[in-house]
Amino acid sequence: MTSRTTVDGKRLLKRLDDFAKIGGTPAGGVNRQALSVEDRGSRRLLAELALARGFRVFQDPMANLFIRREGLFPQRPPFVIGSHLDSQPTGGRFDGALGTLAAFEVMESLEDAGIETDFPLEVVAWTNEEGSRFAPGTMGSMAFAAGAIPEAWSDLRGRDGALFVDELEATLKALPEAEMRPLGFPITGYLELHIEQGPSLERENIPVGIVYGIQGTRWLEVRIDGQAAHAGTTALEFRRDPMAAAVTALEPLYRSAMPGDPRARFTVGRFAVEPGSVNSIPGSVTFTVDLRHPETNAIDDLEERVRQACDNASKANGCQSTTRQIFDMPPALFSDDLLTCLDRAAASLGLKTKRMLSGAFHDALFVSRVAPAAMIFVPCRDGLSHNEAEYVEPAHSIEGARMLLAATLEAFAASA
Amino acid sequence: MTSRTTVDGKRLLKRLDDFAKIGGTPAGGVNRQALSVEDRGSRRLLAELALARGFRVFQDPMANLFIRREGLFPQRPPFVIGSHLDSQPTGGRFDGALGTLAAFEVMESLEDAGIETDFPLEVVAWTNEEGSRFAPGTMGSMAFAAGAIPEAWSDLRGRDGALFVDELEATLKALPEAEMRPLGFPITGYLELHIEQGPSLERENIPVGIVYGIQGTRWLEVRIDGQAAHAGTTALEFRRDPMAAAVTALEPLYRSAMPGDPRARFTVGRFAVEPGSVNSIPGSVTFTVDLRHPETNAIDDLEERVRQACDNASKANGCQSTTRQIFDMPPALFSDDLLTCLDRAAASLGLKTKRMLSGAFHDALFVSRVAPAAMIFVPCRDGLSHNEAEYVEPAHSIEGARMLLAATLEAFAASA
Repeated sequence: MTSRTTVDGKRLLKRLDDFAKIGGTPAGGVNRQALSVEDRGSRRLLAELALARGFRVFQDPMANLFIRREGLFPQRPPFVIGSHLDSQPTGGRFDGALGTLAAFEVMESLEDAGIETDFPLEVVAWTNEEGSRFAPGTMGSMAFAAGAIPEAWSDLRGRDGALFVDELEATLKALPEAEMRPLGFPITGYLELHIEQGPSLERENIPVGIVYGIQGTRWLEVRIDGQAAHAGTTALEFRRDPMAAAVTALEPLYRSAMPGDPRARFTVGRFAVEPGSVNSIPGSVTFTVDLRHPETNAIDDLEERVRQACDNASKANGCQSTTRQIFDMPPALFSDDLLTCLDRAAASLGLKTKRMLSGAFHDALFVSRVAPAAMIFVPCRDGLSHNEAEYVEPAHSIEGARMLLAATLEAFAASA
Repeated sequence: MTSRTTVDGKRLLKRLDDFAKIGGTPAGGVNRQALSVEDRGSRRLLAELALARGFRVFQDPMANLFIRREGLFPQRPPFVIGSHLDSQPTGGRFDGALGTLAAFEVMESLEDAGIETDFPLEVVAWTNEEGSRFAPGTMGSMAFAAGAIPEAWSDLRGRDGALFVDELEATLKALPEAEMRPLGFPITGYLELHIEQGPSLERENIPVGIVYGIQGTRWLEVRIDGQAAHAGTTALEFRRDPMAAAVTALEPLYRSAMPGDPRARFTVGRFAVEPGSVNSIPGSVTFTVDLRHPETNAIDDLEERVRQACDNASKANGCQSTTRQIFDMPPALFSDDLLTCLDRAAASLGLKTKRMLSGAFHDALFVSRVAPAAMIFVPCRDGLSHNEAEYVEPAHSIEGARMLLAATLEAFAASA
């Protein structure tokens, strides 16, 4: 039966185009940041498509969106597939959307083929995977795995000043058709299809990556306080310039962190200067550091080097630096059983695959703490993601969806 | 007669307090940026004080504000004293306000003493000296000296997005009591009292600086374009990171520019990153460089070093940099005749002085291109300016006003 079932490639590509219009940018990307009007619009469209097919739609207190197709034994925990619908401010049209829409395509294909599964299948769109408007990312899956919304988020504000809880409530209210359900519940397993966001599959000309784990990610926020003063009158010996301190601290880190270890990732993505006047020495600078590595102790080491460099450069410039972790996700390894299902699926479809580690973090990481989980990657043109030029070949999107369908049926068979 | 005339110190200090309340910040500074509601409020207060004393009030198309006290020969060009009322976003209460209010105190003292001058005296508050909201600074005196508003300002926008011409018109309309007069007219001379904004007078315990010139200032805007990409998945060889390029370019400049030449000033006051996401390699960074030196060829040399460093670091990081001048003011030397008047005034008051060069630029610089001009500095606590903690001892503010009165009378005597 499995072999006779397949996805509707045309329908999937049409859906990708339709969703890319919601928050679409002139440059061909999307700006659909978490809990924004655009994010709500994409949730509405998905919910309406689901209700039109007779599927039930749920949301939990974190606004995680679930679409349910019943199984033979409705009381058994569902098998869940999906990803996220939110994007970076200047993001691509595949990051998140591909995995969510491919999952929905899998559900529709089963419905089209009249295939009854032993237990329920659910499609999920997790809330705020990107973390660009409200930090940290993967809030939805994080809270789902914890079974509760962290206290700290109650007064969290977005970069636009919006209060997280207000935007969350408005987003929930914007979808009254969805039935409310509690946060966190037992699931049989989780599969997520995603664009690689790196160049390796494309370079090796492999259509499918079977992801066995995710490297660790840690975000630091560094603030350096000096003293604002007049740019023209303040001689060097009277300066306490936090900009000079930041540059002095970062230069050797750029020179050593990644060249010194090909598996390390070192990125400064945000940098703010106060007061921000051309003719004033800044009073303070604040910047973020994104550190990644497959090994936790290597991340610890990188963090220590950042702290040391910022402290030393600040002292040398008469400034003070404070460095704090704003996000920390240890490396994770996925479920062997589900990896086996992915291998079988690829074999049945005759698709060449490679086992790989994910450089980006994903909702699957948090789900893997409460249930068996694994991921499928498809090639990403030029390795470009978090960029409006992000692109996945149509054939690769469709092959990814076929992998997701086949692996889901393998998982149902394995748990029968 | 001169010797019998003096200023009302209490009145001057009270005025400084009153004006510090307009746009006053909790930290004790002021936020009274050019053409803002707060700026308009301070212009209104000064105009009302002037009208209450029977002085005429004028404004020109640049919203430069003039207060006129008639002389024996009204047709002779006026002698002008004053400064500015606008401030930095987190500015001090003396920068500009002291010179403007001391000038008004001089005019009131002459009125109180019933002293008739041969020709008119005018107090001026120049528009947008700071340049923090609308760049460049000293727009008002620049346009006054040129006799026209530069074409380029017609579509100039502030950092808050406001259109310069709209805010200018609203500011002019906010003071209907002022008579309109054309931009630029003959003046006999110009004196400006200002806080030093540097530490030298305080360190040498000298109450009055006689400023013989102003060092040159040049502002550069550097933009480095790279490629936004995912922080976790993009290996070093695939990165085109403009943040890495900027840090690599700036580090050696901080190490060499000012240590290499004590008269040089090198400041990066603004730094913006796009898209500004923790987990995205930036697509572009833009920053400003403020260069100052008493000699033009030294400024040319510094600019060339900035351009070279940014080009080289950008190439090394697969990025492209563009550097453009956004402001350029050559060094200036003041009028020997007025410097002599200042020496005589100091001698008559028994005040110790020192001849000095200004590190900051001032409206006097542009006025000096169309008429004899000079400046008086008073000590600045800890050399701190463009800072809410900026402070001038009350005694020093009063001595500065006494210098301005005495020197103004010397100038009238000299031109009699």
